Amino acid sequence: MTTSSGVEPPSSADTVELLGLVAQLEQTAFARLAADSRIAPTIEQRLALTRFAAAAVQRRDRVLARIEELGADPVAAIGQFDGVLEEFDVRTEPSTWWERLLKSYVGYGVADDFCRLAAQGLDEQSRQLVLEVLDDASHSELAVAELDAAGAGDEVLTSRLALWGRRLVGEALSVVQRLLAQRPGLERCVRAGAAQAAAAQAAAASASSAAAPTASAPPNAPAKIFGELTAQHTRRMARLGLTA
Amino acid sequence: MTTSSGVEPPSSADTVELLGLVAQLEQTAFARLAADSRIAPTIEQRLALTRFAAAAVQRRDRVLARIEELGADPVAAIGQFDGVLEEFDVRTEPSTWWERLLKSYVGYGVADDFCRLAAQGLDEQSRQLVLEVLDDASHSELAVAELDAAGAGDEVLTSRLALWGRRLVGEALSVVQRLLAQRPGLERCVRAGAAQAAAAQAAAASASSAAAPTASAPPNAPAKIFGELTAQHTRRMARLGLTA
Repeated sequence: MTTSSGVEPPSSADTVELLGLVAQLEQTAFARLAADSRIAPTIEQRLALTRFAAAAVQRRDRVLARIEELGADPVAAIGQFDGVLEEFDVRTEPSTWWERLLKSYVGYGVADDFCRLAAQGLDEQSRQLVLEVLDDASHSELAVAELDAAGAGDEVLTSRLALWGRRLVGEALSVVQRLLAQRPGLERCVRAGAAQAAAAQAAAASASSAAAPTASAPPNAPAKIFGELTAQHTRRMARLGLTA
Repeated sequence: MTTSSGVEPPSSADTVELLGLVAQLEQTAFARLAADSRIAPTIEQRLALTRFAAAAVQRRDRVLARIEELGADPVAAIGQFDGVLEEFDVRTEPSTWWERLLKSYVGYGVADDFCRLAAQGLDEQSRQLVLEVLDDASHSELAVAELDAAGAGDEVLTSRLALWGRRLVGEALSVVQRLLAQRPGLERCVRAGAAQAAAAQAAAASASSAAAPTASAPPNAPAKIFGELTAQHTRRMARLGLTA
């Protein structure tokens, strides 16, 4: 079976691989939020962070349930990505609370964006689930509000955080690069996702221009994804008034 | 207002104080379960422990909601017990996974029992809530099953854990002692709870013997509580086949 764009949709095994990564990212988010909740400056923040951590567990479990629905083993699916961000975490140990907040917002944002892009080619139910799970931005909102308040008028902090953001995105993009190189299943998801997006774009263009749709799979989809991830990063930094 | 047992029921402020302690214990349970989930030997255990951690957040929030219903500030109520188990944790750092499991089951069990006993004299709604919140034993069941399986036939482990259990209960009882000495509100809750229990016992006795109820507040209620806590501890250790 091929899609209208001529690209094979991801197999069930590829889908499970991507879902396993999403589940592992939520598991990692839980661990990070739980650790943050121990050292947050105020009790209100601590309470809020434990609630975000609990929500990450629920999101992870929704993804694991979908993996089971697809007939695969959830424990194996999440387990294969055990420690996926370990090296990233070692290389980007925050030294202040602000660096920690920015890392939550910017560093992990790249991994989330990657999954969102790769999810575009999945079956409708899995795609919807991934987008819903990764769309819960309540914690980002908190990080943005706090960073915004802290950065306002503090030029030293602002320029330090801009530097930190560049370091974070560089390390995060290496993680994505490594994942794509080591996991053909994820690479196929990205390819299918890009084809899906291109087909949607072409359909929209033909609807307005009445020309025949001519979309095909962009041959360099996995390479192109880095452009999109960087653009998303720039947008995120801009929201904080930081130079990407 | 006095109860039929002649003991003042805890004031609203005393009730909030006990609820604040219960909320803090759930907060502490969250932190401990989250830390355990990072180092548990298997992925299944890690997943289960994060679920228990998320459940602790929900239980804590139920207690905080009740504090708010009583017209008090939840953040202040939980905040006053910030670090209540810190010294206990420093003095009982587990050196193995088994010691860690036993600490969850036995060490924190004492604090839970204390709250359960103190809750007996609260208004019906608060009392029910505390008992419900502290009754969620799913994590204990896991600890018991694992310790049971590990200890079976391993005499060295069994005798080491028995020793560890004695150390844990000693340290946990000191925490209770310190709380009672420093917090008259908790002491009043314990006194009211003991009176309530005595009245219930007397009513049951009079129902069967047709004698008049003669219950009054046991004057040494706070001291007597240590006997009950130790009895509960012995029962818990026995479930594991360990000598208390």
